[in-house]
Amino acid sequence: MAVTAIRGPVVPSRGALRPVGLHQVRITGGFWGQRQAVNGTATVEHSRTWLDRLGWTGNFVEPISPVRRGREFSDSEVYKLMEALSWETGRPGGTSHAAQLAELTALVAGAQAGDGYLHTAYGRPGQPPRYADFNFGHDLYCAGHFLQAAVAGARTGAAPEQLLDIARRVADHVCVRFADEGFCGHPEVETGLVELFRVTGDERYLDQARKFVERRGHRSLPEHEFGWRYFQDAIPVRDGEVFQGHAVRALYLAAGAVDVAVETGDDDLLAAVARQFDRTLERRTHISGGMGSRHLDESFGDDWALPPDRAYSETCAGVATIMLAHRLLLATGELRYGDIVDRVLHNVVATAVADDGRSFFYANTLHQRTQTEVLPLDREQLRFGGGPRAPWFEVSCCLNNVGRLVASLGTYLVTEDDGGVQLHQYAPMRVEAGGMVLDVDTAYPDQGAVTITVVEAPETPRTLTLRVPQWAGGGTRQHRVSEPNQQIRVELNMRPRWTFPDPRADALRGCAAVEVGPVVMCAESVDQEDGVSLDELRVDTSVAPEATAVKGRRILPVAGGWPYRGEPQTAEQPDPVVIPLVPYHRWARRGPSTMRIWLPTTPS
Amino acid sequence: MAVTAIRGPVVPSRGALRPVGLHQVRITGGFWGQRQAVNGTATVEHSRTWLDRLGWTGNFVEPISPVRRGREFSDSEVYKLMEALSWETGRPGGTSHAAQLAELTALVAGAQAGDGYLHTAYGRPGQPPRYADFNFGHDLYCAGHFLQAAVAGARTGAAPEQLLDIARRVADHVCVRFADEGFCGHPEVETGLVELFRVTGDERYLDQARKFVERRGHRSLPEHEFGWRYFQDAIPVRDGEVFQGHAVRALYLAAGAVDVAVETGDDDLLAAVARQFDRTLERRTHISGGMGSRHLDESFGDDWALPPDRAYSETCAGVATIMLAHRLLLATGELRYGDIVDRVLHNVVATAVADDGRSFFYANTLHQRTQTEVLPLDREQLRFGGGPRAPWFEVSCCLNNVGRLVASLGTYLVTEDDGGVQLHQYAPMRVEAGGMVLDVDTAYPDQGAVTITVVEAPETPRTLTLRVPQWAGGGTRQHRVSEPNQQIRVELNMRPRWTFPDPRADALRGCAAVEVGPVVMCAESVDQEDGVSLDELRVDTSVAPEATAVKGRRILPVAGGWPYRGEPQTAEQPDPVVIPLVPYHRWARRGPSTMRIWLPTTPS
Repeated sequence: MAVTAIRGPVVPSRGALRPVGLHQVRITGGFWGQRQAVNGTATVEHSRTWLDRLGWTGNFVEPISPVRRGREFSDSEVYKLMEALSWETGRPGGTSHAAQLAELTALVAGAQAGDGYLHTAYGRPGQPPRYADFNFGHDLYCAGHFLQAAVAGARTGAAPEQLLDIARRVADHVCVRFADEGFCGHPEVETGLVELFRVTGDERYLDQARKFVERRGHRSLPEHEFGWRYFQDAIPVRDGEVFQGHAVRALYLAAGAVDVAVETGDDDLLAAVARQFDRTLERRTHISGGMGSRHLDESFGDDWALPPDRAYSETCAGVATIMLAHRLLLATGELRYGDIVDRVLHNVVATAVADDGRSFFYANTLHQRTQTEVLPLDREQLRFGGGPRAPWFEVSCCLNNVGRLVASLGTYLVTEDDGGVQLHQYAPMRVEAGGMVLDVDTAYPDQGAVTITVVEAPETPRTLTLRVPQWAGGGTRQHRVSEPNQQIRVELNMRPRWTFPDPRADALRGCAAVEVGPVVMCAESVDQEDGVSLDELRVDTSVAPEATAVKGRRILPVAGGWPYRGEPQTAEQPDPVVIPLVPYHRWARRGPSTMRIWLPTTPS
Repeated sequence: MAVTAIRGPVVPSRGALRPVGLHQVRITGGFWGQRQAVNGTATVEHSRTWLDRLGWTGNFVEPISPVRRGREFSDSEVYKLMEALSWETGRPGGTSHAAQLAELTALVAGAQAGDGYLHTAYGRPGQPPRYADFNFGHDLYCAGHFLQAAVAGARTGAAPEQLLDIARRVADHVCVRFADEGFCGHPEVETGLVELFRVTGDERYLDQARKFVERRGHRSLPEHEFGWRYFQDAIPVRDGEVFQGHAVRALYLAAGAVDVAVETGDDDLLAAVARQFDRTLERRTHISGGMGSRHLDESFGDDWALPPDRAYSETCAGVATIMLAHRLLLATGELRYGDIVDRVLHNVVATAVADDGRSFFYANTLHQRTQTEVLPLDREQLRFGGGPRAPWFEVSCCLNNVGRLVASLGTYLVTEDDGGVQLHQYAPMRVEAGGMVLDVDTAYPDQGAVTITVVEAPETPRTLTLRVPQWAGGGTRQHRVSEPNQQIRVELNMRPRWTFPDPRADALRGCAAVEVGPVVMCAESVDQEDGVSLDELRVDTSVAPEATAVKGRRILPVAGGWPYRGEPQTAEQPDPVVIPLVPYHRWARRGPSTMRIWLPTTPS
């Protein structure tokens, strides 16, 4: 049966590599197959239940009440769910949610104003006016998520055609209202506008996105205690050296800037974003791939300020990092961008969501000092800065963000160009691309063996390029694909390894971590001997780590008194200890615990 | 001329040691004499100018407008200034501000409601109701500061008698309104009520303070994203193990709890606070004596979570630490509490305020990674979480808090008991206590020599007890004072010393600091060779530090790329370098700079 072409979330009209369509990659099982199945059933159901229960869908019901439930960005959760439902409906092997999409489309349609404006919180009698607060109003942020949902609905055909009509009217309104000035404190509409341009061909949308990118960085938003950096309004996008301020805002803006740069041929802008991303990866990224180290303003810290215990590493920042890296990969063809996608997938996205898909981390700490709490599962959490996985948060952006990513994950794993096909990520899957059909068999990330079987060969021989992760040597492997039943085997070295931080990363000094393939390991209290505090363990890096444990010692801290003393305290207990490890993404799944990724080393 | 007895800010009716009156200690010069002079003239003038300019005094002018200027606690700034003006007027050698106190007393009097309630933000037509928000309303917080101001006005006689009348009516109202339930999210009224009891003898005030202390800790305040810990409402005061939540709130509450414990003979409560303070000093206090490591909620971090670069170490928390330590000193007679007072005075209070007394730090970081900004001096700062010294903040609690402390500083330096006199802190001063008159001559903290001359001996010989700081060996020295012209000489060892952190303090691992006497040293960029980043210096702790410099090396970091690597990076440049140091309290006084106290050590 011929599959209808279904384009994915990001379809640039030019670039070094071409994205595959949603229909071209079927994840057939394994780590992400399981995640995708749970995401497409339990998570979207859970999310919808909460949206209804809290009244965030109810906000759209006519006549719209001036007394509204939820925060000023709660509309966007409905839209992100619609996007996830669309990709899930459209992906090979996905569950259809067409009926729900029809229902939600009708619901949203009723809330749109005659001039196209769409937001349930503003502009009606008894409500604050539209666009009254560019810093935190989120009018355009919500519009951007709606555009992305409509793009997903249109490309998959999962939603009624009306959805795209509503989106065009939203975008038309935005182009009129913001023809000359203004932009949203939370970037997001930029990517939505460019993608809508890619669907409709209407260049006004691209031009509006370009304006929004160019208008930033001149300190024109109202002054706020977090400073203009928080809103990416301190420095023009093309002049920055490194990502600054609120991490999700910065990464969404960068993704939008890449979209604009690609479509307008603005190579300077593209280079500026790539440069800032490189510097951010070098100096402002946790070993997990997580970004954002400050709780106060959910922001990037200064260079090298990467404290594990206050890692904010918001789940949404992980999703945004993948969005950005994928766009840069497509634009530049540099396969190294796959490394950070791999890392974030297996250490942020995989960590954030519970096995049953019904609770999640908002922030992903790298060091839990005090035992995680047991949370009630029947109500949302007010605290979104950390803590255990919760069913819902007052600010609940992350779960639906993961939802839309995971439902469309296939499009992030593989690309094409005229010469052939590129495999960036490894998962058991069937790939139909570049005139060939490939079956990929692997237990990655648990094992390093990858076997690719050519099911159908291209008419003329073409190249299959495989990304070799940096930890497995880096670079690429290229294979000529010419015949059916041809097999290509890759063995990525999954030997557990010690990893050491840059000496300028103050909070990590004197520590090492263990990694196995793309997976960062951690010590969790539930695996340790009774009474052993994780913070009193010291690892011996002269002994090679095993996948399940490392060797070390326990310290003998001085008890009581002022903790700053005239001699370094290096006393250790005489007997060596074995310190069990588990993948970081498995932590906090077995009851309350403490945890650390970075393990202090023995003084010797 | 006989000096009228002037009691100071804290006058318990029982305890191991008795406080001296304000009139009994005249600081005659030196480090704190200079500070006191600037504080009593420039700082109070600066503060008054800003209070007027921003309308925070104007809020009291009748008829009180429902449209008010400043935050919900701005009234307290007027009260803290009144307290500072009173102590300044009353202290030996102080500047009289009696006319200003009369003016401010009349101003405040006009704002008091008929039933005694006093706050300019609540309860009038067009204003929110009284006590509508216990978490953040600050009704009682402001009342507490007013009571302290009235106590200062009454004890010094600097303010009109009317001030104490207003205060009694405020307290009477509080006792009626809160007879059965309720308490303020920001502790402060407790200390004010107890001190008013001490002035008036009205036991209702003490009992009300006791009720406020006892009511806390049962999670009865409205739920908030910061959690009940933030408000010290998670655990009853007498059940805690360590101070938690917002540092200033926690310390003010602890001070109030000591006051209540002392006056009611509640030794369990006293022991509980002492135990929590000890644990806090051991695990939650920066080397500067600063407390509070989180910016998000201005709170204590978990045990051992003491990142220098995100040290919040609010100036007010420093003032509150001294308030608490002084109360515990008086109650228990344990001279070791003088150690933390000494440390906080010379490394938090001294650091916070500019030399001219007209700008200040709200937060006192221990590591400035990026160059401090140059701030405009003509407007208040919206950001109170860090940054350079500013003339004023939107939340400007710290300067007047320092003001009232420094104006009454003499009372914190010396105590009496039946056996004699105790010197806790060293400064050039004349002390009249325990039937003797002493001249103290010293250049402390710059030098360690202290010479005490007996000007007048007691009628019968008595004991002079001197605190020996922990860094100089600890313990006490006792001298029998029997004759005029007797001289007592102490030489505190001011040899610069290396100090190392507890191995559980993750953020300090692999670092050392230099201390000289009570003064913590730092490296500041303005003293280093051109182009040298402080974050690339490594100190050699095998070489004894000098007071102005240490020896070390520069690292050779790997440039670019992913910063987590398979081998530790220990490369250093071959030539040793000299790393100049200055006292931490001198930093940021010579233009924009970076700074660090904790210096990474060479790998060897």
